[in-house]
Amino acid sequence: MATVKLLSDDELSADARAVFDDIRMVRKSDFVNNFWRALAHDPKTLRRTWNSIKDVMGPGALDPKTKEMLYVAVSIAHGCSYCIHSHTAAARAKGMTEAEYGELLAIVGMAAETNRLVTGLGVPVDEAFLVDAVD
Amino acid sequence: MATVKLLSDDELSADARAVFDDIRMVRKSDFVNNFWRALAHDPKTLRRTWNSIKDVMGPGALDPKTKEMLYVAVSIAHGCSYCIHSHTAAARAKGMTEAEYGELLAIVGMAAETNRLVTGLGVPVDEAFLVDAVD
Amino acid sequence: MATVKLLSDDELSADARAVFDDIRMVRKSDFVNNFWRALAHDPKTLRRTWNSIKDVMGPGALDPKTKEMLYVAVSIAHGCSYCIHSHTAAARAKGMTEAEYGELLAIVGMAAETNRLVTGLGVPVDEAFLVDAVD
Amino acid sequence: MATVKLLSDDELSADARAVFDDIRMVRKSDFVNNFWRALAHDPKTLRRTWNSIKDVMGPGALDPKTKEMLYVAVSIAHGCSYCIHSHTAAARAKGMTEAEYGELLAIVGMAAETNRLVTGLGVPVDEAFLVDAVD
Amino acid sequence: MATVKLLSDDELSADARAVFDDIRMVRKSDFVNNFWRALAHDPKTLRRTWNSIKDVMGPGALDPKTKEMLYVAVSIAHGCSYCIHSHTAAARAKGMTEAEYGELLAIVGMAAETNRLVTGLGVPVDEAFLVDAVD
Amino acid sequence: MATVKLLSDDELSADARAVFDDIRMVRKSDFVNNFWRALAHDPKTLRRTWNSIKDVMGPGALDPKTKEMLYVAVSIAHGCSYCIHSHTAAARAKGMTEAEYGELLAIVGMAAETNRLVTGLGVPVDEAFLVDAVD
Repeated sequence: MATVKLLSDDELSADARAVFDDIRMVRKSDFVNNFWRALAHDPKTLRRTWNSIKDVMGPGALDPKTKEMLYVAVSIAHGCSYCIHSHTAAARAKGMTEAEYGELLAIVGMAAETNRLVTGLGVPVDEAFLVDAVD
Repeated sequence: MATVKLLSDDELSADARAVFDDIRMVRKSDFVNNFWRALAHDPKTLRRTWNSIKDVMGPGALDPKTKEMLYVAVSIAHGCSYCIHSHTAAARAKGMTEAEYGELLAIVGMAAETNRLVTGLGVPVDEAFLVDAVD
Repeated sequence: MATVKLLSDDELSADARAVFDDIRMVRKSDFVNNFWRALAHDPKTLRRTWNSIKDVMGPGALDPKTKEMLYVAVSIAHGCSYCIHSHTAAARAKGMTEAEYGELLAIVGMAAETNRLVTGLGVPVDEAFLVDAVD
Repeated sequence: MATVKLLSDDELSADARAVFDDIRMVRKSDFVNNFWRALAHDPKTLRRTWNSIKDVMGPGALDPKTKEMLYVAVSIAHGCSYCIHSHTAAARAKGMTEAEYGELLAIVGMAAETNRLVTGLGVPVDEAFLVDAVD
Repeated sequence: MATVKLLSDDELSADARAVFDDIRMVRKSDFVNNFWRALAHDPKTLRRTWNSIKDVMGPGALDPKTKEMLYVAVSIAHGCSYCIHSHTAAARAKGMTEAEYGELLAIVGMAAETNRLVTGLGVPVDEAFLVDAVD
Repeated sequence: MATVKLLSDDELSADARAVFDDIRMVRKSDFVNNFWRALAHDPKTLRRTWNSIKDVMGPGALDPKTKEMLYVAVSIAHGCSYCIHSHTAAARAKGMTEAEYGELLAIVGMAAETNRLVTGLGVPVDEAFLVDAVD
């Protein structure tokens, strides 16, 4: 299922092709996954999204594996099956062990449970957790 | 706002008090936050939840800071303000730097954006990301 | 916080007043809660929503208490604090005991946890659970 | 997958058939999509839902295309794949161009991103955005 | 689709097998559904989750049918297709009639609608619904 | 509540100040709302987010009012109270009438209701709504 046709390489506009070239160069792989092939109908959003992904998921204070695990956690909470599959694969490719994956899932489940308990009970935030928004 | 009264120490049942004692011992702190005071009306759920939290958030393959950051990410996606405040405080207490926090937030936002783009486009999962569920 | 002013009785249009009259008659109470006072700016949606609520929450196969408990469960999952407060109050008014409330919360939390585990693992639906959509 | 059998025309109750007749008349088409065929097991909810859809999506202050685009946006945020497919098709049928569709998706993604950033940061609402709920 | 292989009986670790034995004994059935076969990669989470399910869904103040219906309601709100299918089947097995199922769905839909109306309008909680969190 | 201090103008880094200057210039207003003051701790995300907002919400195929209304719809579905308040204010500033606002809310509520009905029933997508993802 999809709401647009996935574009093959020879159906890309020049603008979309330039982004695909960069994806291939940065990832050192010829494989371009379906997300980008769906997004390629709109080269402007394609480029902005790819640039943001490079920025956000590139080198920084957190290591690449942790970044992908955070991406998986959010994707589960949002119920995006595609994203779960692609970022779980990416996390494994970046070194996530099965033990770490098990703990990730357990934390996501646990957080979901306590998130809902807290919300159902309407628990007020403790003074101790507050940061003064203004002086 | 709350749907139950938060129980003070002298309003606890014996069963709830035993859990509070364990919380204080494990955390090496006298402070017991409001979540447990709301949950204390139901000692069975209080005990089960606390035992699960100890299991899931205790020593394992992932370090404590990463565990708390995953908890924060899920809590943001579920919109639980209390949980966001308590686990952001916990992540900081376990060493999360402001640079790491900034990256965490950026990843949560980025994942939310691509989760919705993918869902809107109905992108089919690439063969490359599939794990055979059965042989 | 609100995005519209809550209308007091003497600010209602004739159409909105007629709905308020029916709310008071059906509920046998003079109290009209804030939801209807916010919705009263749009008498058409006010009337349609009130009529639907009467239909859905009125006498049927499920008893009124169970209906309110289902309403609370969904409201927690959607993170609607107002709805949680109003329908928890309604469930209590219709006989929900604190023991039942504790179990409701425990189920909502448990479902949240397994929902996310299942989604994270991408578990395929068992044959045994399928209903043939078409012959 | 489905939790009920989809009803074909000759399996409808008289009440459900009457609603199907109205759907066909209003839409000037013989095609009745699967949603209504699943809902037809419960003629009361079928009728109420169809009447509400006619009310909400019928002529008003907003044009039909904009209404469908809002429906798509909400359906993406709720992760309802069926609804995304049916209302994206409806929006296109009512004149949504591919350029407009691209912007719709970009806005949904952008909103998702900033929604989560704001929630994660716990940003307090500015005075300037508040409407006084009461005088 | 799945992110792990579903384990067959002869692929289970000793720890996982012990949980499967208990599932079969408690349910008085040889059938073990896919959720547990996916979770079996992590015997610790498998055991904790199964023990929690037994606790939460076992005998209590609410009858088994009502418990399953609450589980279905939450699973719909979280968009977990697997969970919807498995718990709808369980609710039917525990006596949920089609009339009750119709009302459950109508309530979930109605709650979703008013949850979003309330959230959009930012309705403040009425004094009458508040429980004093602290004295 | 907030997890970071909101930065006043004289607490901004040079990088953050440059973004604030651009916000003020583009919006032709001295007012910079709290979202940007919270985000200002991370000038990189501040700049990327502001640039994306300008791109996505700037002139295009859809008019500014419709864009803001889509933003409001998504923010309601995600339960972001701050975003609802800020973008409802923006939509009104760009010409949204109260009649249009009433219809927006009604559509969001209606979509939420049918989204959940469809999800609960597990309705399969009609052939007629499918776009071939690949030739």
